[in-house]
Amino acid sequence: MKIVIDAMGGDNAPREIIKGAIAALKKRKGFSLVFTGNEAVIAKELSLYSYDKSRVQVRHASEVITNDEAPTSAVRAKRDSSLVVGLKTLKEDTEAGAFISAGSTGALLTGGIMYIGRISGVKRPALCPAIPNVHGGITLLCDAGANADCKSEFLAQFAVMATAYAKAAYRMDNPKVGLLNNGTEDHKGDIMHQEAFALLKETRGINFVGNVEGRDLMFGDCDILVADGFSGNVALKSVEGCGKTVGAILKQEFTKAKIRYLIARKQINEVKNILDYNRHGGAILLGLKKTVVKAHGSSKASTVTATVLQAVDAVEGRTVEHITQMLFGSIEE
Amino acid sequence: MKIVIDAMGGDNAPREIIKGAIAALKKRKGFSLVFTGNEAVIAKELSLYSYDKSRVQVRHASEVITNDEAPTSAVRAKRDSSLVVGLKTLKEDTEAGAFISAGSTGALLTGGIMYIGRISGVKRPALCPAIPNVHGGITLLCDAGANADCKSEFLAQFAVMATAYAKAAYRMDNPKVGLLNNGTEDHKGDIMHQEAFALLKETRGINFVGNVEGRDLMFGDCDILVADGFSGNVALKSVEGCGKTVGAILKQEFTKAKIRYLIARKQINEVKNILDYNRHGGAILLGLKKTVVKAHGSSKASTVTATVLQAVDAVEGRTVEHITQMLFGSIEE
Repeated sequence: MKIVIDAMGGDNAPREIIKGAIAALKKRKGFSLVFTGNEAVIAKELSLYSYDKSRVQVRHASEVITNDEAPTSAVRAKRDSSLVVGLKTLKEDTEAGAFISAGSTGALLTGGIMYIGRISGVKRPALCPAIPNVHGGITLLCDAGANADCKSEFLAQFAVMATAYAKAAYRMDNPKVGLLNNGTEDHKGDIMHQEAFALLKETRGINFVGNVEGRDLMFGDCDILVADGFSGNVALKSVEGCGKTVGAILKQEFTKAKIRYLIARKQINEVKNILDYNRHGGAILLGLKKTVVKAHGSSKASTVTATVLQAVDAVEGRTVEHITQMLFGSIEE
Repeated sequence: MKIVIDAMGGDNAPREIIKGAIAALKKRKGFSLVFTGNEAVIAKELSLYSYDKSRVQVRHASEVITNDEAPTSAVRAKRDSSLVVGLKTLKEDTEAGAFISAGSTGALLTGGIMYIGRISGVKRPALCPAIPNVHGGITLLCDAGANADCKSEFLAQFAVMATAYAKAAYRMDNPKVGLLNNGTEDHKGDIMHQEAFALLKETRGINFVGNVEGRDLMFGDCDILVADGFSGNVALKSVEGCGKTVGAILKQEFTKAKIRYLIARKQINEVKNILDYNRHGGAILLGLKKTVVKAHGSSKASTVTATVLQAVDAVEGRTVEHITQMLFGSIEE
């Protein structure tokens, strides 16, 4: 099975992307890598590492889509970009299981729908990252930002898709599904969330446990948190902000107390580690015919490694087939 | 000037409410307190402290509204509740400047509109707490949860009301206004937030600086963060959750390293202190004809003290008059 990777997307591309992906090869067997991007640049980066050459391929792409470009027109115009070539490789190569990019989220969403396509019957694909909790585990947040404008029936599908993903890739048994809302009581929320609550209660095959507030995001009370893409994005970035904020305060407080820092270093670093939402990889895009994963734009090598392994898990667990079966009762091949 | 306080509302009422309010008397001159609630209970609590008796009054109220009750019917049915008696006192007593309650948010919102009334022309009153930032300062978040369903024109008014409040009570000069959105680029957001962005750009009298993401909530890049009440609530509770999460992780990590904790205690407590969003008081309800403040349900005495001083600042700064003037160009008396 092949994992295709956009070598040129992200703030730290190509160096950290290639370094992290190569490191993943040593952590797990049973897959190989296909890098897309400028062949000469990739070859130069690859020459820095020793690895099993039979497990690495390169597909040349002459262009790069940047974050400044309008997603739809960029995907249409730059057909030889590392992102589009990667998506085409995923689509055409029957051995390719997943595509990863740390580039433009908008371009990946648009390109994913355009080149890979939705599972027939899926209303809206959704981004589903794993956010850390205080117990060292994860909660899947779905949708974390693919769909700013949502209808309640989209949220019901997000719950089903994320449940299928949790079972397939994380081997969770009967994962608990919560609805991100502005209070825990059953009647809370705007009209759309009130409707979503009613729909989720009736949705078969999921284990809906009710409303969850922003303050409990990281306490692991549920395995899956369903959200509209707008407030889901606010929540995701708040978790990110929490890590950033705590890092900044710790730095500020311990700069004048270096010895104390050295003494408590192990514990302080563990705090930062638990809050680091990048350590669980990227955000999978659920609802497409093949696995597509968005890695954070600022991903360093360790995040890329985690993202590659996350993609391998998603493919090996047959996430797409599980989603299809849960939504429509049949396996699409 | 009198600050009226619901002595019976909140998880730690009446003890912490009365203790905190009495402590505020010693911190500032120029105001007195009116407690509403069961007279005998309040008298017993007051007997625990020594204070200037001329600055404290009690108004008996035989009932209490709980969080479990439906707000509208509770406010209508329980006319002799500490909350309703407090609101009536604020309305009728010309010396009363503000009312504070740590009780049911819904009942306070409903009762505030019913008994105090909106400033004429205000579309929706909004909750506006001060959230902490890493520099030790604050950002006003408006709306933090009064209006789950918002239209873009509400958000434009929130920006104006919060600007007036920032100037009046916090003495901010030309406060920077950001819009909580799912990205920093100008075109981001669902349709309502795109419209709000356009409206905020054209709104006179405010210093609009553009979109702000959830990750930058606590970095103090803006003085005022405008939000719809749904995602504003998610953001507020995420900040709260950040403090809770970090507290839980620190406890977990340092339980097995007590000596290290003792050595780094000062810095660790400062981290918790900066993240404590309660230390700046409660959430003022902007847009009413008099000042109403919601204190957090779990408020301890120190939070109540901060909330009383916050209410004094709001009244002394003539917040209501500033809002009226900024919105409609005239002072309502």
